[in-house]
Amino acid sequence: MTAPNIETIVSLAKRRGFVFPASEIYGGLGSSWDYGSLGVELANNIKQSWWRWLVHERDDIEGLDSSIIQNRLVWKYSGHETTFSDPLVDCRACKGRFRLDKLQDVNCPKHPSVHPGDDKECDLTEAREFNLMFRTTVGAVSSEDDESALAYLRPETAQGIFINFANVLNTSRRKLPFGIAQIGKAFRNEVTPGNFIFRTREFEQMEMEYFCRPEDAPRIQQEFIDGFLDWFDSVGILRENLKLYEQTPEELAHYAERTVDILYRFFPEREDEEKQFDELMGIANRKDFDLKAHSKKPEDAEGKRLNQDSTEDLSYFDEQTKQRFYPYVIEPAVGVNRTLLAVLMDAYSEKTNEKGETRVILKLKPELAPIKVAVLPLAKNKPEIVAMAKNLKKQLLPVMRTVYDDTGGIGKLYARQDEIGTPFCVTVDHESLEDNAVTVRDRDTWEQERIKVSELKEYLRKRLD
Amino acid sequence: MTAPNIETIVSLAKRRGFVFPASEIYGGLGSSWDYGSLGVELANNIKQSWWRWLVHERDDIEGLDSSIIQNRLVWKYSGHETTFSDPLVDCRACKGRFRLDKLQDVNCPKHPSVHPGDDKECDLTEAREFNLMFRTTVGAVSSEDDESALAYLRPETAQGIFINFANVLNTSRRKLPFGIAQIGKAFRNEVTPGNFIFRTREFEQMEMEYFCRPEDAPRIQQEFIDGFLDWFDSVGILRENLKLYEQTPEELAHYAERTVDILYRFFPEREDEEKQFDELMGIANRKDFDLKAHSKKPEDAEGKRLNQDSTEDLSYFDEQTKQRFYPYVIEPAVGVNRTLLAVLMDAYSEKTNEKGETRVILKLKPELAPIKVAVLPLAKNKPEIVAMAKNLKKQLLPVMRTVYDDTGGIGKLYARQDEIGTPFCVTVDHESLEDNAVTVRDRDTWEQERIKVSELKEYLRKRLD
Repeated sequence: MTAPNIETIVSLAKRRGFVFPASEIYGGLGSSWDYGSLGVELANNIKQSWWRWLVHERDDIEGLDSSIIQNRLVWKYSGHETTFSDPLVDCRACKGRFRLDKLQDVNCPKHPSVHPGDDKECDLTEAREFNLMFRTTVGAVSSEDDESALAYLRPETAQGIFINFANVLNTSRRKLPFGIAQIGKAFRNEVTPGNFIFRTREFEQMEMEYFCRPEDAPRIQQEFIDGFLDWFDSVGILRENLKLYEQTPEELAHYAERTVDILYRFFPEREDEEKQFDELMGIANRKDFDLKAHSKKPEDAEGKRLNQDSTEDLSYFDEQTKQRFYPYVIEPAVGVNRTLLAVLMDAYSEKTNEKGETRVILKLKPELAPIKVAVLPLAKNKPEIVAMAKNLKKQLLPVMRTVYDDTGGIGKLYARQDEIGTPFCVTVDHESLEDNAVTVRDRDTWEQERIKVSELKEYLRKRLD
Repeated sequence: MTAPNIETIVSLAKRRGFVFPASEIYGGLGSSWDYGSLGVELANNIKQSWWRWLVHERDDIEGLDSSIIQNRLVWKYSGHETTFSDPLVDCRACKGRFRLDKLQDVNCPKHPSVHPGDDKECDLTEAREFNLMFRTTVGAVSSEDDESALAYLRPETAQGIFINFANVLNTSRRKLPFGIAQIGKAFRNEVTPGNFIFRTREFEQMEMEYFCRPEDAPRIQQEFIDGFLDWFDSVGILRENLKLYEQTPEELAHYAERTVDILYRFFPEREDEEKQFDELMGIANRKDFDLKAHSKKPEDAEGKRLNQDSTEDLSYFDEQTKQRFYPYVIEPAVGVNRTLLAVLMDAYSEKTNEKGETRVILKLKPELAPIKVAVLPLAKNKPEIVAMAKNLKKQLLPVMRTVYDDTGGIGKLYARQDEIGTPFCVTVDHESLEDNAVTVRDRDTWEQERIKVSELKEYLRKRLD
């Protein structure tokens, strides 16, 4: 079962402390979100799953964590300064500002029943390009107009990988093919962010650049497309809610040979099935565009260096073939926030209890659950029961994240743990003091089993694997 | 043994891929650094150790991950807009710009033998306050001077915690005392960054705000001072290189009742022992300043609301005493980057081998080591040995981070693993194919032991604990 719409998740996320509107006490800040105690654990678990799968389990990918603010020249030669923009139009009548290519997706602020430009009262200006990079100024300069101090917040983590290609190659003594992976914040000054954490100006990326011989690129790209479908499955995203989308020649970025997007059904409530899906990630064959662009050697037809500033040549020398060339790059890029949203939507389910009440169960994969086990004392006014429960928490914690919770009656505690996706509740009751056993309750089936304390850790470990 | 100076660590970090100068191929960007594959693992392990200790092992601290860009009003009412600044002076003669309070720490660019102001040729201006927050503009505004769109990159993660106090309190059903912990990037437009990763404009903080009754604050502050000394010990920072420093009344921030800094011996090469130490972290009693500042209720003497914009009152109602009050806050704030630097410095050691050559050993605590076990094939041209080694890697990986490495002769591989702090090397040799056993080599003692493959995982697990 999948959540019927994003709003269901927004409400659950706020109520249970996964995600809050950012700067809420000051009226927010247009589509900006903070992650509460459960949200940060879920996000961390998603990031760790991705990192373990790509960096730790494979033998051919190195990790990296580069700066958010880099030298401005990085964005000059990557092409972002000139091409990373949206076409904007203003309406002289309603004073609204819109993306020319998304007029049909928004409504006129003055006449909400029509799209901007559809009404004869609309008076749209010519489109102009609006660069999506956030600008800032580095150092104690006299004026903010001082161009020499201009810097950008990175709009993607990828460029931090390309400019470190030689550093990683030299220190890791890698041979092709190999990859460099990075997780980190990126910033895009979107004109119309929205749909909860689907599109935000500040977001977190998990990007990996895989460097290979040009002739191997098509095969490797396909392997990562298949690989990511498997990874999404492993984190609980349903295959039926995913769709592959092959970018058309018109949609392809100028440097890309082939890009396949993996779409997720973020909007199941929409009638038109086409429109239910939107981008979860992209897997691009960027050819040798990036390494060439940041290299000092390549020249144009007149023999002029294309990059006047780089101090490095980022080509690769193949010792077997004795050839030097710029590796091709396959880039699987996925957002932490969109993955988290898709995970929450597909984990969402409802169940009716014996009283006929509807309960929410978040059927998260145990690997992703913020809390694996909740230890609950049946009577919090009985010191021996509390002590035994707290002691169990301590015993289990090194192996699986366990919390102790006594903030309500047992029914409420169970309902809360179901709603936040905790796979198992362990209840310590009066009998536990006698028989040294506890009740283990399963989140999905609500079935309970009596387990000896001495066998508890092993029992839970097996069930969680 | 401790590294003799930071430069030793800079060199090791670059050579082995812990830390690289950021934007290096474009000449860098003033004291900005990227973390290579070993650096990012070490930083992740430090962060996880801190998070596990505070958030997972205790029962009274919630996690949080708030946005880097918040509503500007957050920084108005926190006081950062008006008070988070350094006094700067310009020199009309040399065109240099300096911090008035640090003139004695830098040299005149024109006459490097003197400090700015010490030379009669120096012509310093009056000091003016320079705000340390990075500015940016959010949304598609017409002009960058549009004040309504002005925003800042957060200079600390703490404020994101205060403004979410009510959200966390309500969703977690906490009672005092409890804490909220956050790890994340912060940005300060320092005039003179430097000393490797010690002072950078972009850095990562681990901050925790612990909310309590005013009368409990002094005791709790002391408990965290002691607790952090223990935590530093657990990550391998030597007690003899730490020093407590009690801020004087003149040094205290206006909102702080007592602040204790924990200093580390970052500059052991300096003759004056006083000057060897600099700040690793601070533990402040911030009183009720922050929650009050962000609340809508408090009024000044004339009955005017001190905060005209907040929509929330961040006071706390104690159900037992039936009193409502603003909790006090104890804040232990520590930098990921400075901790990482101190960890590397204290892990650094040298050892002479039987040939009289000096080898570097990074004696990292196993918990922090980027790689726990390296599996090395003695002969990489023998497929059975390679297969057995790769298979061992797969078996060990789920329990401890293991890599397979065949990029050199065994002597070189050992030396490399010593230098990056890998506690154990496992060597698969010709005999392994016969006796199903491998050689385990200890990083610190260089002693080797023959271990049966069937017992290897358990053996290593015990040694690593």
